[in-house]
Amino acid sequence: MSLMNPKVIHEKVEERTIDELAKKTIEHCLKEGIETVWDRSEMQEPQCKWCSTGLSCSRCTMGPCRIIPERNRVRGVCGADADLIVARNLLDMLTTGAAAHSDHGREIAETLLLVGKGESSGYTIKDTEKLFAIAEEYNIPTDRAAIEVAHDLALAFLDEFGTIKGELELCRRAPDATYAIWEEAGILPRGIDREIVEAMHRVHMGVGAHYANMLLHGLRTALGDGWGGSMIGTEVSDILFGTPTPVESMMNLGVIKEDQVNITLHGHNPMLSEMIVEAAESEVMQALAKKNGATGINLIGLCCTGNELLMRRGIPMAGNHFNQELVIATGALDAMIVDYQCIFPSLPRTASCFHTKIISTSQKAKIPGSYYVEFSPENATEAAETIVMTAVENFKNRIPERIFIPGKPVAVTAGFSVEAITKALGGTLQPLVDAIASGKIRGAVGIVGCNNPKIKHDYGHVTLAKELIKHDILCVETGCAAVASGKAGLLTPDACFLAGDGLKGICKAVGIPPVLHMGSCVDCSRILVLLAALANTLGVGIHQLPVAGAAPEWYSQKAVSIGAYFVASGVYTVLGPMPNISGSPAVIDLLTNGLEGVVNAKFAVEPDPLKAAELIITHIEEKRKALGI
Amino acid sequence: MSLMNPKVIHEKVEERTIDELAKKTIEHCLKEGIETVWDRSEMQEPQCKWCSTGLSCSRCTMGPCRIIPERNRVRGVCGADADLIVARNLLDMLTTGAAAHSDHGREIAETLLLVGKGESSGYTIKDTEKLFAIAEEYNIPTDRAAIEVAHDLALAFLDEFGTIKGELELCRRAPDATYAIWEEAGILPRGIDREIVEAMHRVHMGVGAHYANMLLHGLRTALGDGWGGSMIGTEVSDILFGTPTPVESMMNLGVIKEDQVNITLHGHNPMLSEMIVEAAESEVMQALAKKNGATGINLIGLCCTGNELLMRRGIPMAGNHFNQELVIATGALDAMIVDYQCIFPSLPRTASCFHTKIISTSQKAKIPGSYYVEFSPENATEAAETIVMTAVENFKNRIPERIFIPGKPVAVTAGFSVEAITKALGGTLQPLVDAIASGKIRGAVGIVGCNNPKIKHDYGHVTLAKELIKHDILCVETGCAAVASGKAGLLTPDACFLAGDGLKGICKAVGIPPVLHMGSCVDCSRILVLLAALANTLGVGIHQLPVAGAAPEWYSQKAVSIGAYFVASGVYTVLGPMPNISGSPAVIDLLTNGLEGVVNAKFAVEPDPLKAAELIITHIEEKRKALGI
Repeated sequence: MSLMNPKVIHEKVEERTIDELAKKTIEHCLKEGIETVWDRSEMQEPQCKWCSTGLSCSRCTMGPCRIIPERNRVRGVCGADADLIVARNLLDMLTTGAAAHSDHGREIAETLLLVGKGESSGYTIKDTEKLFAIAEEYNIPTDRAAIEVAHDLALAFLDEFGTIKGELELCRRAPDATYAIWEEAGILPRGIDREIVEAMHRVHMGVGAHYANMLLHGLRTALGDGWGGSMIGTEVSDILFGTPTPVESMMNLGVIKEDQVNITLHGHNPMLSEMIVEAAESEVMQALAKKNGATGINLIGLCCTGNELLMRRGIPMAGNHFNQELVIATGALDAMIVDYQCIFPSLPRTASCFHTKIISTSQKAKIPGSYYVEFSPENATEAAETIVMTAVENFKNRIPERIFIPGKPVAVTAGFSVEAITKALGGTLQPLVDAIASGKIRGAVGIVGCNNPKIKHDYGHVTLAKELIKHDILCVETGCAAVASGKAGLLTPDACFLAGDGLKGICKAVGIPPVLHMGSCVDCSRILVLLAALANTLGVGIHQLPVAGAAPEWYSQKAVSIGAYFVASGVYTVLGPMPNISGSPAVIDLLTNGLEGVVNAKFAVEPDPLKAAELIITHIEEKRKALGI
Repeated sequence: MSLMNPKVIHEKVEERTIDELAKKTIEHCLKEGIETVWDRSEMQEPQCKWCSTGLSCSRCTMGPCRIIPERNRVRGVCGADADLIVARNLLDMLTTGAAAHSDHGREIAETLLLVGKGESSGYTIKDTEKLFAIAEEYNIPTDRAAIEVAHDLALAFLDEFGTIKGELELCRRAPDATYAIWEEAGILPRGIDREIVEAMHRVHMGVGAHYANMLLHGLRTALGDGWGGSMIGTEVSDILFGTPTPVESMMNLGVIKEDQVNITLHGHNPMLSEMIVEAAESEVMQALAKKNGATGINLIGLCCTGNELLMRRGIPMAGNHFNQELVIATGALDAMIVDYQCIFPSLPRTASCFHTKIISTSQKAKIPGSYYVEFSPENATEAAETIVMTAVENFKNRIPERIFIPGKPVAVTAGFSVEAITKALGGTLQPLVDAIASGKIRGAVGIVGCNNPKIKHDYGHVTLAKELIKHDILCVETGCAAVASGKAGLLTPDACFLAGDGLKGICKAVGIPPVLHMGSCVDCSRILVLLAALANTLGVGIHQLPVAGAAPEWYSQKAVSIGAYFVASGVYTVLGPMPNISGSPAVIDLLTNGLEGVVNAKFAVEPDPLKAAELIITHIEEKRKALGI
């Protein structure tokens, strides 16, 4: 038990989150002495001022170096100045994010290939229509069996990762004007992996030397993620597991059920989680659960794996990034199954306070202290059964007096793929374009990204979304942003009472929430497809649309890549937390100003979501004016 | 003019290098106030202790974080501990190096493809025999024109960068026992780019969580470099520009000629430099030089571009990494032409004290303050002419009173490709194997890598090489190590007087130096091919050979990758400078101990080259004993 003063506990709780059930659980953790991300963030104060500003470099062993002008440290040992050191660090960060998304895309494309070869375990083609439509984009003959088409399409996708082809087919989805901007700027990606590898080459000592040249290549690398790796990730997931359609479900820590086997699915790639769902729904497992004293098996999503399952299957979600430790602290979680990305490596330490088993499944992300069940498309069914069985058998190990379920869940409607939005509008995006043209909807904003201890949990996302819908701006969201809106009640048609009259009218007429959940962070590619479709309907480039992007609570390298491909695609993007770049005024100026001259869009940084909303509203009104609407 | 005390100057000079002409030039720089790498190294003291030990992380914006146990900072905000943070940093470093080599290999393979398509400017096939031999390895039909074979082989090489093939053909060059070790350890690379991208994926927050799992993937990535990207770089360079044969030339800063147009070729990829040579040798340029008052054009190599030109064309070299600023300080350098890797980004600042023009040529490495002439295989001839003309016309801008040529160059013999070594031995490696078996030669050591201000310039390389040859150990060298030996006079047959009696006898009989220059740092792949050939001749795995690797003055990310593929290939490798890993005893133990159980080889760290020699000699004698020789 903690000896912390109740007043201090109360203050900490209020500083940390606006998620009401998270508040109760954080209070519980503080009292019980269970370490959470906020405690570690406090532990890490004060942060290094050179690392924070991007001015430290330990990339080679001539260093490490720091730029400290007042001590005459103006160049690193290699001769790199502040601008170069900052740009190198930022490019590495962006590239890490692009690699993460793209490697996920590759894995699922390889699964599609195994399906095409008849060598996968348990996977099938769920959306043949989408398979055939995309095959036609790639000029793959479709007058034959789906499995044969899948085989050839998978190979075509995998070709996008290689060097030989030299261009990405999916970039052709962009409006002509946008594509021409990329060509002109020399940032049209040639291959997904190639741009990532070249970026790392440029990071090497004595290669990239000009900050702007480095960061332009960053845009190219990011475009290879957004219109390449991530988009393949989304499209293949739809082909294998179905394209999302509107679906109702529940969200927040209250989705945990005391009388059921609770299994949280955490991570990113639906390859694993979809198979877990199949296994958990089987009669054998349901019977085993009952045999172990539970009334059933309760699957719970978390982070982007949660978003994938919510979008396609309506599986309830416990929350976003900063709920990952709190769900363990309920004491009623029997297993947390993880694949990769955004998984705190200390989760087994958190779980060690309880009976909860952390089960890691990816060769890429074995976690010390976790149970490891290797998962691959070839052994998917068997591995999923092993995992679910482990969870079910752990039910009896619960410590009843340690169970803490902080409240009841909130209703959400999710599943807004571009296809679903189009269908809701009657089969074409024209009604949305008309609503924007008439001014009933002033514009649209993609709110994406993570949680970050530098911003009160969910406050950035929810405050921004509320402010924007109040001003008749439609919000489309992915990742942790969408989950924040869900927990705050914004993902239901009823939430349109918070919207301005114009948006409210449209939402009511169409029957959609004012904030649309479009999926996981890889599904930011859906936002690109939506933007391309809107721009093509209007006959303009994406940069001319009255739209913006925002990442009010971003933390991750993937978010840097997403932000960069938004901006490179012509979307003004407002970040909450400042990247580690403040040591270079030149880099700041390039990102927040100079890029406008290259891709007709730029970044802004504004941690206060109300001020961010102002920036976005002003931008949207300017874009409307330029379009003459 | 500097006001520095002559005694201090003398001390600094003696501390900094053993290269006699470098000493004089450093003295000159200190007196003139020309900043060099050693000054910047002093400027950066004291270095950050967290960055030095690998314990800082600024990979995401939840941080930056540092592990400081005494202040209870035992985990980063994400929950990563010291081991993970150190491993993530090291994997990033290794991956940067593998990306640099492999992207270089890709560029030259793409040039081969253009030659095959008849679309390059000025490139031809110089070694048809090698082209046909490698084509056969790839099962490409060779009963047709070389250009057609080149086309198909280039595509086969480019396939090695992609995902679809799933394995690297060139890894089959390894002995069966070595290949089996890779399969067993799960580190057989599937594709050059793929492993790099997966490595960066693993670096992302919440992916790689176990330090050992991360670093094993590092070995896989490095194997994709050594037996993939780098090997393709070497092989295609040989095909396009000729496989090296023994050649005599000169080395050190004294190669600068007062009466000629001096052009230094600095960087790594021979694509550029070979074309510059063609242009400089043309009658038009020679005439232009004379018209400008010079007696001719003096091409000078530097770093690995220099090694490539020395190996194939006998072009003299000014020196290695730490000679790059000193050659400018001679005041007689009319142009320095650079492509990428290991090029101090501050060179234009150095050059600004003189008339010297720095000409950057690669889109990947535009240097602020340099002249930029974009170079590509399609415009190679024209760009090379423009560059040489710029240099020639700059001759007249010299300031005669600022010219400082510190002495005369040293003779060297280079050009020891595996093919050349085999030929020198009479067409087979058997005589070398016999000499090793009989004990006349105790073993062989690959000395590779860079310069680093933490080690007295060239002292590590030269001291180690001298000590090893004295003990009848043949040295094969690449990169800056080979150049250090060259400047120290070890690269001539006459240097065998420094060798033990056994090695001396063999060297005299065959007519080779006791230290063999095998090429650039990409050409460490030649060392792998040599090792494979030796092991195959003996019918053992590489790990059973009485050989070792050493990087006495390494600094770069590429060196990390080279060291890792040496060890992964079974070669005990001794590093001079300590990597930034001392914050994790677990990582240290894995690298210097645990890897033995995985790949039958490990790292050691020993900055003192005499002690490093002891470690290596002991190792070689143990391996001899195990082989029963």
